[in-house]
Amino acid sequence: MASSDILLRDLSDDGILRLTLNDMKRRNALSEAMLSALGTTFSEAGRDPAVRVIILAANGPAFCAGHDLKEMTAGRRGPDGGEAYFAKVMSMCSGVMQGILNCPKPVIAEVTGIATAAGCQLVATCDLAIAADTAQFSTPGVHIGLFCSTPMVALSRNVANKHAMEMLLTGDMTPAARAAEIGLIHRVTSEDTLQHATTEMARKIASKSSMTLTTGKRAFYAQREMPIAEAYDYASQVMVDNMLAHDAQEGIGAFIEKRAPQWQDA
Amino acid sequence: MASSDILLRDLSDDGILRLTLNDMKRRNALSEAMLSALGTTFSEAGRDPAVRVIILAANGPAFCAGHDLKEMTAGRRGPDGGEAYFAKVMSMCSGVMQGILNCPKPVIAEVTGIATAAGCQLVATCDLAIAADTAQFSTPGVHIGLFCSTPMVALSRNVANKHAMEMLLTGDMTPAARAAEIGLIHRVTSEDTLQHATTEMARKIASKSSMTLTTGKRAFYAQREMPIAEAYDYASQVMVDNMLAHDAQEGIGAFIEKRAPQWQDA
Amino acid sequence: MASSDILLRDLSDDGILRLTLNDMKRRNALSEAMLSALGTTFSEAGRDPAVRVIILAANGPAFCAGHDLKEMTAGRRGPDGGEAYFAKVMSMCSGVMQGILNCPKPVIAEVTGIATAAGCQLVATCDLAIAADTAQFSTPGVHIGLFCSTPMVALSRNVANKHAMEMLLTGDMTPAARAAEIGLIHRVTSEDTLQHATTEMARKIASKSSMTLTTGKRAFYAQREMPIAEAYDYASQVMVDNMLAHDAQEGIGAFIEKRAPQWQDA
Repeated sequence: MASSDILLRDLSDDGILRLTLNDMKRRNALSEAMLSALGTTFSEAGRDPAVRVIILAANGPAFCAGHDLKEMTAGRRGPDGGEAYFAKVMSMCSGVMQGILNCPKPVIAEVTGIATAAGCQLVATCDLAIAADTAQFSTPGVHIGLFCSTPMVALSRNVANKHAMEMLLTGDMTPAARAAEIGLIHRVTSEDTLQHATTEMARKIASKSSMTLTTGKRAFYAQREMPIAEAYDYASQVMVDNMLAHDAQEGIGAFIEKRAPQWQDA
Repeated sequence: MASSDILLRDLSDDGILRLTLNDMKRRNALSEAMLSALGTTFSEAGRDPAVRVIILAANGPAFCAGHDLKEMTAGRRGPDGGEAYFAKVMSMCSGVMQGILNCPKPVIAEVTGIATAAGCQLVATCDLAIAADTAQFSTPGVHIGLFCSTPMVALSRNVANKHAMEMLLTGDMTPAARAAEIGLIHRVTSEDTLQHATTEMARKIASKSSMTLTTGKRAFYAQREMPIAEAYDYASQVMVDNMLAHDAQEGIGAFIEKRAPQWQDA
Repeated sequence: MASSDILLRDLSDDGILRLTLNDMKRRNALSEAMLSALGTTFSEAGRDPAVRVIILAANGPAFCAGHDLKEMTAGRRGPDGGEAYFAKVMSMCSGVMQGILNCPKPVIAEVTGIATAAGCQLVATCDLAIAADTAQFSTPGVHIGLFCSTPMVALSRNVANKHAMEMLLTGDMTPAARAAEIGLIHRVTSEDTLQHATTEMARKIASKSSMTLTTGKRAFYAQREMPIAEAYDYASQVMVDNMLAHDAQEGIGAFIEKRAPQWQDA
């Protein structure tokens, strides 16, 4: 995987893929180019056995400003007033978000600066999210006549209704500490220690069996959509399959014998 | 819209409809008369272009005491022991609650005093809720042999299971600060500043495009009931339609040109 | 109901069934014997009119360590590598968890020590949970190559996605105070006052009408799985039936007449 200019990729020896949004001029907006880079990268990283965990970070004062409004506006020029173009962009964007959920590797957002609209959705979509105490979040579509309807799919599955509605109806900024209280992110650190915190968490997760992480992440989102009895039937079968895999046999054996496990893919 | 004695209506020039429960003698209980007034009012307000945001407040020490137990008891006198009457009242009440969810205008609860049973449900149902620090909430049906089964439909969609169960199984009062912690309301203020806080929030929301608010509120509750892939398909289409509407074109244009937007219906 | 050695049963005169996990040697693991004892006990307690509320406590430094890994490992010896055995154990375990949800009597977890994997799931599954401030929770399957896929069915229905994912992907311990913040339990006390706190809560609930509690608990989990309009139709019918039952007539009458109610089954 090569880095593109707008999405930097850095894969460490211990399997941590660090992605950095790097289109500062556009405040890391989800332009067509950025959506395409993200879609391809998460897809490839999902298949690459060298990648165990992904960190999604950003350069500049904006983590991600959401859709690229100038590009969207230019799209209006078509004979249909932009309808086909908007449908294409929305489909790309929703595809990237679901690509993160479906990516078998855990994804940690490392949030600095301002994450707005689809940028806030990006953070809500990641499996984990740690933010600098100076970070801020908002779904400000109401300010420009365009309700953050796709961002709210992710937002409303991560925070309580009234917290989601407060953000969506007012468009106000939510500081990092408040975002942690309502569950949009799971931890806040100082700016100085943020990268250390995400890297430590990524290292800890990368030390586990990739087969196990992949099994678990997929099962998490799959069972979350099911009625509880069906979820138990499904998750029980996942457990049986997991028990029969090498890494569970090795991991349980190592635990009983009080030694370090040796994962198949490590 | 004329005010009735038990439900006062006051529509400001900037589109804020202030509704005040005003049946203090019955602790603002959801009597047939009150349910009827609420149902009609939310339905009319939803259609009235002059109404942009709704505040639901109350006069007296009780915000709302839930169903009118004396009226319910009188209903037992029918040959069926009240079965048809209870079914009618429950249908009216559930209709009012869903009428608030389906009302295209955002609804803010301004809670003073005690909100109990279906009164607590009313707060849980509003899109937003700010309470005085002296307000209290409970689902006390267990005290009288009548579990708060309809209130829990709203409660359990707004707070975590164990918080809902604590309220439902004990019937204990939850102070406003705790209600904010668990997500039943989104903010607490002093009694003195409560009306200022709800009015400021209503003004902020009323300054947005009504088309946008209406689009967003409807989509919020609709997508919340869908599996995530379906929710993304649906919300993407909502975004496309929203992009094609006048107010998004105007709002995005104004944003790019750094001027104030002029909404179509303002 | 007789106590078995590994699951102590103590039924008080006021209808509080205190169950104590008592297999300290195995850290109260959910062995086949323990699962069988729990399954039978919750099933019997659900039918026993003398039982009004259940407390689930534990002896020793571990509340419950999850599955019995030595027993599971021994199960690998079959010609199928353990597949049928694992399927049987998972089915038993998911049956016990759903048996707690389906048990018509409220269940309060009283958590001391460490609740891990399916032990954490047990706490998440109880209707209410109070923990000592020294208690800790984790879903540590990732450490041994076996993702906590069945525990996450309960965990992810009680806490926000990112909080669940943090526990599942890192396997780290969550202290009691943090578990309360994220909604996994609803209260923390000192070790000294824990049993007093759960007993007081159980007494309060036991003083209510059993018919009402049973009606409400069943309806809670049933409606939680439905779309909101269907949930309202269902809950409205539950309310009508509840209104027609003796205890609601008695309870509402007592409330209006300002006297103590006399429940049918008390």
